[in-house]
Amino acid sequence: MFETIENKKISQMVIEQIQGMIMRGELKNGDKLPPERELTQTLNIGRPALREALKALEVIGVIESRHGQGNFVVNNTENSVFKPLSLSFKLSNGNIEEILELRRLIEDYTVKQAAILADKKDTVILQEIHNAMVNADTTEQKSQYDKQFHYEIARISKNILINSLLESTSYLFDSFINKTVRMSFFGEDSIDKIYEEHLRIIEAIEKHDAKEAARRMHIHMNNIDVYLLNEQ
Amino acid sequence: MFETIENKKISQMVIEQIQGMIMRGELKNGDKLPPERELTQTLNIGRPALREALKALEVIGVIESRHGQGNFVVNNTENSVFKPLSLSFKLSNGNIEEILELRRLIEDYTVKQAAILADKKDTVILQEIHNAMVNADTTEQKSQYDKQFHYEIARISKNILINSLLESTSYLFDSFINKTVRMSFFGEDSIDKIYEEHLRIIEAIEKHDAKEAARRMHIHMNNIDVYLLNEQ
Repeated sequence: MFETIENKKISQMVIEQIQGMIMRGELKNGDKLPPERELTQTLNIGRPALREALKALEVIGVIESRHGQGNFVVNNTENSVFKPLSLSFKLSNGNIEEILELRRLIEDYTVKQAAILADKKDTVILQEIHNAMVNADTTEQKSQYDKQFHYEIARISKNILINSLLESTSYLFDSFINKTVRMSFFGEDSIDKIYEEHLRIIEAIEKHDAKEAARRMHIHMNNIDVYLLNEQ
Repeated sequence: MFETIENKKISQMVIEQIQGMIMRGELKNGDKLPPERELTQTLNIGRPALREALKALEVIGVIESRHGQGNFVVNNTENSVFKPLSLSFKLSNGNIEEILELRRLIEDYTVKQAAILADKKDTVILQEIHNAMVNADTTEQKSQYDKQFHYEIARISKNILINSLLESTSYLFDSFINKTVRMSFFGEDSIDKIYEEHLRIIEAIEKHDAKEAARRMHIHMNNIDVYLLNEQ
């Protein structure tokens, strides 16, 4: 039993070491780790502790073990089965209003930046996503294109950090809102309003009018909030 | 070898199940998990796969194994040795400007909310932190009080999600900025300016003037950015 506790501590130290090497840029995306035998010697630890650390790093999406090739540094943290932010938030009794607040904050930023940075190609893509959403057959598909619309604006804004934050927030949002309610938002009554709002946002981005883009996004977010909080 | 791959898949499924139960509120902070023997039967899996899943959940700070008592749901994700957001960001070649942008966004929100929500006790605490910072002997201590000042504003703003985001951002920031540079910011030349800015922020919060508080925070953030980006 004591050995297990020891092992846990050692494996955490190994995790911290690898994390530190990534943060200092000594390990980069795609890098291969030294063979496990060499690592146990360098770190002066046993095989079980190393395995435990690598396994944990693999589950979180920082390391990938490729059969017969060894262990590689990867960036799969977004697809990770762990959503620590979401879990922590849920466990501290966070509520949906807090998520909506954060989303407003992010969307306000991304739409302003998009209005400043967007080129012709960017607005064409936004328009195409909008068209695909209008022509989609199911509310499920429409919901997917809606997400893509907002992610695309974030992509145009060119801040990787805020991009991945929008994705986390979106995941958090989905896990808090009842799916039926979420889908009903893309139903007949409210969908025309969404289309209209998206078009106004595209127009403002096209004109590089950051203030108007933010104003339009604000109206859009308000409508989403009012709808969802009433239906919940 | 194939057994390992199998195990990994199974343990990931177990992780997803537990994660889902947390997100649906079926498992709450402090809850005890069923005994491992029972879990292997319910989930129809082997002991090694269960152990692997629990270990990974433990390292990330969602589960705590208490010797002789069993496994408990906890919320240690913030103290977790994993900082997936930071790691992912570093691995996708994010840069310091993006972190500063996100920090501005968060601080703009928290200071406005703090100005709206702060009561007398809150501003007294802010003033006390400020005094402690002024009286601290070392730049290291001053830097700690400075952090506490900003965290306290976030606490007053009452959004748990944005609070924990500020902490992640702060961690990310620290790991990107050279420590000597960071400490030099709290040196003689620039420290009086920081004190002055903090006092103006406290005043605006005390007067419940959200606009002025945001303006003062904006000036403060600008000075930090200019300083750090020049010294870097």
